[in-house]
Amino acid sequence: MSQLWKKNLINITPYVAGEQPENSRIIKLNANENPYPPSPMVEKILRDKNAADLRKYPSADAVPLKKALARRYGVREENVFCGNGSDDVLAAAFRAFFNSDKPVFFPDVTYSFYPVWCEVLKIPYETKPVNSDFEIDTKDYYEENGGVVIPNPNAPTSIGKPLDIVIDLLEHNQDCVVIIDEAYIDFAPDGFSSVGLIEKYKNLVVTQTFSKSRSLAGMRIGMAFADPELISYMQAVKDSYNSYPLDQLAIETAAASLSDEKYFAETIDRIKNTRDEGKKILRKMGFTVLNSDTNFLFASHPEYSAKAIFEFVRENGVFIRYFNKPRIDGFLRITVGTDDEMSVLYKALEKFFESVK
Amino acid sequence: MSQLWKKNLINITPYVAGEQPENSRIIKLNANENPYPPSPMVEKILRDKNAADLRKYPSADAVPLKKALARRYGVREENVFCGNGSDDVLAAAFRAFFNSDKPVFFPDVTYSFYPVWCEVLKIPYETKPVNSDFEIDTKDYYEENGGVVIPNPNAPTSIGKPLDIVIDLLEHNQDCVVIIDEAYIDFAPDGFSSVGLIEKYKNLVVTQTFSKSRSLAGMRIGMAFADPELISYMQAVKDSYNSYPLDQLAIETAAASLSDEKYFAETIDRIKNTRDEGKKILRKMGFTVLNSDTNFLFASHPEYSAKAIFEFVRENGVFIRYFNKPRIDGFLRITVGTDDEMSVLYKALEKFFESVK
Repeated sequence: MSQLWKKNLINITPYVAGEQPENSRIIKLNANENPYPPSPMVEKILRDKNAADLRKYPSADAVPLKKALARRYGVREENVFCGNGSDDVLAAAFRAFFNSDKPVFFPDVTYSFYPVWCEVLKIPYETKPVNSDFEIDTKDYYEENGGVVIPNPNAPTSIGKPLDIVIDLLEHNQDCVVIIDEAYIDFAPDGFSSVGLIEKYKNLVVTQTFSKSRSLAGMRIGMAFADPELISYMQAVKDSYNSYPLDQLAIETAAASLSDEKYFAETIDRIKNTRDEGKKILRKMGFTVLNSDTNFLFASHPEYSAKAIFEFVRENGVFIRYFNKPRIDGFLRITVGTDDEMSVLYKALEKFFESVK
Repeated sequence: MSQLWKKNLINITPYVAGEQPENSRIIKLNANENPYPPSPMVEKILRDKNAADLRKYPSADAVPLKKALARRYGVREENVFCGNGSDDVLAAAFRAFFNSDKPVFFPDVTYSFYPVWCEVLKIPYETKPVNSDFEIDTKDYYEENGGVVIPNPNAPTSIGKPLDIVIDLLEHNQDCVVIIDEAYIDFAPDGFSSVGLIEKYKNLVVTQTFSKSRSLAGMRIGMAFADPELISYMQAVKDSYNSYPLDQLAIETAAASLSDEKYFAETIDRIKNTRDEGKKILRKMGFTVLNSDTNFLFASHPEYSAKAIFEFVRENGVFIRYFNKPRIDGFLRITVGTDDEMSVLYKALEKFFESVK
């Protein structure tokens, strides 16, 4: 056969996600998953669900979830967009809002899916280097551009910023859409979220996810908050690609999670305590650890290679994340697990230091 | 504010799905949903699921489902791609395979999402008119093109075709990828599916869905079968857009459905019987009804407008589908429901004929 059809194949380099080992005895601190189960209300949904309903299509606009989110975040239903994980939400936003010949700006050290979407969607982009403390300088984003996307807190650096940084970005970027990716916001101090700014800034999109703070990574649920006009464009993109991205159980488990804020606050507190304790312990071991406003720690060691440490603890049954990338290849990204899981990690690290003495 | 940012907004016309009325007393014969619940094995998954597992990301490649599909369809795991409904699967295939300057060919009367994807993904396309019996003439597809996509059975015409038509298309289209969209194949006679051809034709992609024959529209599950090389390109597209489109419960309920082929065969038989009976009843009422190989009937009446009938039965609590589109605006698309649901429809139609006498 001629195989001439191969000339029409797409040419892309896909994103590579964290390993998902099948062995359940491995301690997974490599995907920023929540170590605690979702609210018991979620389990109740699964027990009570009438499976016969599954024969019907879900609500195309995830209406029950939009209502629950509007209630929880003090916005209107028209301010909310829901998608199949915040990756789906962010990709829809890129598609809807980044249609300029000018480059979209984002930090050089950030979520590695941004350049992938730009390439796939043929969006020109330019990265703005974070400084040596891995901090963003807002002045880098004052130039003319086709859009701005910044995570707050940033990943994998774990650094969160108060709202004045976001307001500065918005004040200097009124001719493009600004996306603030808040995947980790629930682990940051109160008042860091930009959701309250969408009323004033009509060009602001704030994205969040149920995968981290709400322990529902397995259900693929993400959302955006913005002015109704922006939401309508994201909706148009979604409706032109896949009308029903969120299945019935994703909609229902997410709404159930939102109905149990007490549980939510408790698990967030536990994770923050373990994180702050972990920072101290790692620093005592000689690590440089950035101040984290997320559910992970970003740490490097002045004497030993991150790759060597990564491989050693991996052989000892603990998966953490190492990025073989410029600027951050000296760092490890460690998801905050339970106190017990962290103890196993600390022991593995001590064993490493013993082995290299 | 300047609102200059609006110049970068995307310009598209989204697909419009069938109405999803909130009133549960309405009989929904408008979205080609299955009237029967999914296999009891699906309910068991929801009852037995450990909700704590939802804190973890799902298998990025939906491995447990790929394995179950490979077993059921007698192919290898590398021949299978899974996505968030067959819309997600088809869109990924369009993106992966239709990258030519030459137009992609599909029938003028067909699934209305094809032109939408072409517009959003900037793929040139050309529709090939079906004949006055709504049949495809394969010779129309012999010209040079950038790809071919044909549903078998076709929708909304309900017409299925034996394999010689597909083989003819493939023999005359070896320089492009050919997609056969088999959303309704399980309602067609044995031997109509092209899945067995993927071994011979390396440029063939066959897509299917769990939304119709398997009563899982609410869970959003679709799949493609093809040569491993084609599958790897679809996987690259998926991994560049959204790494985890299928949530844990979608993967698990789909695999459960595949484990209960007896129940599957029984419900398919019931729907086929109701369909064939319905065809006779509608014909007795004076309708022209195309021969259906699907779970719906495509019918027109020589004396009365489809729109008038659609509106009348709607007011009587039965939703069917009317398309205000050239060539098919004289037709109604009626999903095959249970015998009881169909009786309500027949009564509403009789009432209509009474009212216009």
